[in-house]
Amino acid sequence: MTPSAALAAARQLLDRSDELARHTDVPGELTCTYLGPAHLAVARQLAHWMGQAGFDSVRIDALGNVAGRYRGRAAAGRQAPCLVTGSHYDTVRNGGKYDGRLGILAGIALVQALSEAGLRLRHDLEVVAFAEEEGVRFGSTFLGSSAYAGCFDTALLDRRDAQGTTLAQAIVQAGRDPQAIAQAAAPPGGIAHYFEIHIEQGPVLLDLDAPVGVVGAIAGSVRRRLRLAGQAGHAGTTPMRLRRDAACAAAEIALYVESRCGAQQGLVGTVGQLEVPGGSVNVIPGLCTLSLDVRAADDKLRDAALADIEAHVAQVCARRGVQCRAEELLRAPAAACDPAGQAAWAGAIAAQGLPVHTLVSGAGHDAMMMARVAPISMLFVRCGAGGISHHPQETVSQADVAAALATAWAFLHEVDGGPGAPAC
Amino acid sequence: MTPSAALAAARQLLDRSDELARHTDVPGELTCTYLGPAHLAVARQLAHWMGQAGFDSVRIDALGNVAGRYRGRAAAGRQAPCLVTGSHYDTVRNGGKYDGRLGILAGIALVQALSEAGLRLRHDLEVVAFAEEEGVRFGSTFLGSSAYAGCFDTALLDRRDAQGTTLAQAIVQAGRDPQAIAQAAAPPGGIAHYFEIHIEQGPVLLDLDAPVGVVGAIAGSVRRRLRLAGQAGHAGTTPMRLRRDAACAAAEIALYVESRCGAQQGLVGTVGQLEVPGGSVNVIPGLCTLSLDVRAADDKLRDAALADIEAHVAQVCARRGVQCRAEELLRAPAAACDPAGQAAWAGAIAAQGLPVHTLVSGAGHDAMMMARVAPISMLFVRCGAGGISHHPQETVSQADVAAALATAWAFLHEVDGGPGAPAC
Repeated sequence: MTPSAALAAARQLLDRSDELARHTDVPGELTCTYLGPAHLAVARQLAHWMGQAGFDSVRIDALGNVAGRYRGRAAAGRQAPCLVTGSHYDTVRNGGKYDGRLGILAGIALVQALSEAGLRLRHDLEVVAFAEEEGVRFGSTFLGSSAYAGCFDTALLDRRDAQGTTLAQAIVQAGRDPQAIAQAAAPPGGIAHYFEIHIEQGPVLLDLDAPVGVVGAIAGSVRRRLRLAGQAGHAGTTPMRLRRDAACAAAEIALYVESRCGAQQGLVGTVGQLEVPGGSVNVIPGLCTLSLDVRAADDKLRDAALADIEAHVAQVCARRGVQCRAEELLRAPAAACDPAGQAAWAGAIAAQGLPVHTLVSGAGHDAMMMARVAPISMLFVRCGAGGISHHPQETVSQADVAAALATAWAFLHEVDGGPGAPAC
Repeated sequence: MTPSAALAAARQLLDRSDELARHTDVPGELTCTYLGPAHLAVARQLAHWMGQAGFDSVRIDALGNVAGRYRGRAAAGRQAPCLVTGSHYDTVRNGGKYDGRLGILAGIALVQALSEAGLRLRHDLEVVAFAEEEGVRFGSTFLGSSAYAGCFDTALLDRRDAQGTTLAQAIVQAGRDPQAIAQAAAPPGGIAHYFEIHIEQGPVLLDLDAPVGVVGAIAGSVRRRLRLAGQAGHAGTTPMRLRRDAACAAAEIALYVESRCGAQQGLVGTVGQLEVPGGSVNVIPGLCTLSLDVRAADDKLRDAALADIEAHVAQVCARRGVQCRAEELLRAPAAACDPAGQAAWAGAIAAQGLPVHTLVSGAGHDAMMMARVAPISMLFVRCGAGGISHHPQETVSQADVAAALATAWAFLHEVDGGPGAPAC
């Protein structure tokens, strides 16, 4: 892909992102929740663009995944392993234009470039726009990719949204058949490799001054809620040495989480919720609640940090006469990216004359679900505006998208096993 | 006062506390807010007991203060300086039975003992039940004692309660005349000494194993609200070193307040409110609010601590890239207790064979307001149940109340300038 072709494709991708962002549940922002009118319109638009781009077939499955297939030159049909790329087209409330959609539109751009050049890969290539990843409407993430990976949990069909509509009802209302979810699974030949291009949603590439980066692993995470109970008391009459201040215990814990997780590469820890319920200026906090979110590319690294945090919590609480009750909200294992896939991305990046950096993805992605059935890899694209995401300010530059497309073009041929040949 | 007489008087005081606690705005708890039906009933009951106890006159002023006068043997009339003791009879919501009322009932018990013994002091003695100290209904504290001290702020008459009733209207509804507030001021002869007996509302005497203690000063306090603004971000994708976590900044500040105020005797500092508004488990706190309450017996000590805290806040915020906006909510000067009064209390305590301890009152009391017009002193009575107050569990023991009454009896004669003589 020439630099000028990549720039032109990037321009089209950004324009298409703008166009998709016009479909929203809430005027004035971008909110595209699962199976709402905006969501259905985006699916139709993506299917239309796939048709224009030269895909050989496009299907929308029961869950709303839009999958376009570009046949390989082997013409081995649906029984041979294929290459798959994709991402999701739903958004968080008041989200950004590129989260998820960038990866779908990049896949379409690659097929368009192959098609325009009359090129066929050895493998069939499927580009999938996953219908649901964010979990906004039904509180359950990865609906689309779990179905595509063949691991959809049918118990979720009874899950209700805020209006009381079940997932099954929502699927029927969208004119689709919940019984057909099994057919949403990827073609029976299996997946030779799944790759996902995604906006970084963080500031690391910005900080490294690099347009793109290879993802080494998608972090596993543990989320907990802690409730600290000390002793409320009069802020004026209780001497410092006789206090059992739950908020000071929480403060110690928050700072320990920060320092422990800051001491090791690839580890992050966050106390995102912190509150003295019903606190008063003149009352010593008898109660304090806080959340804990710890993530790492390696589950052992994460669990070692958690064990240290637990020990610190116990020590702080014992010293302060504070009781702690902890509840685990989530435990998701890390997903390692395929070493060969990482190497292919590294080679493709270097071939563009760009610096090669490997990052951990702290956020979850459809690739986590796909890791259950295929080797996976990911390319991150630098996130502008300080790395902000899940926010209207989320942005990417045309130059970075062009770099990502050129890199992906090189990667695609590498992972396909050799340069493309004229279409037969 | 013999030990058995003190024990009997203490029994009566505790029974009367129970009886007053039956008058409540909210059945099942003790809530006696200013000029509500419970409050008016308590005033009538106190006036009735004063009459029974042998006071020479009892008046209820426009604000609801109930003042009983027991004439001295000098019979100098209203132009001579008198001794005054008292406390408040309003309560916080769901408060304790002894906060305020203990001091009023102790004053009545002292006069009853004088009267029963046929004793007159040199000075007239006035026992005042202040109508309002807690500030629950109109959000302004010390209404009763400020009027008695002659410093009532008439602008408060327009202050409205939660139902929109002004203070002036509430006074009229209670059958009194807002124009007569000036007459609520203490008798024109001035106050030779004001003393207040009060439950400690903290755990210090409990910790010292002492039934009573001398108050050295009533702490001055400064209250502030701090708003820390950092940068929200994805808890998974933002490396620790690139964060501007407002909650971690708040945690550092809370721990500094604790350690700075814990390092000096007579100083307390509290972060009672702490919150990440709208915090999510998986979002780095971009905002955190906290309150600050710093008190000390000495304003210089308090202000030095505040200056250190300010410097620490600035240093933490600069290091973390966090903005801080601080708002001062309250600044009240400390009130020192009269050295001669303290010495009289110390002598009276020692005369009971009890250990003498001097405490700082971290809580505000009517004595703070009286300090504007008279030398003041205070006796604290040990608070049971871990020192809890402003709570239904607030308690005192009969033995401790008896010790307080016997001590006050000795104090009263000392401060009066010599032993009492038979009534003329």
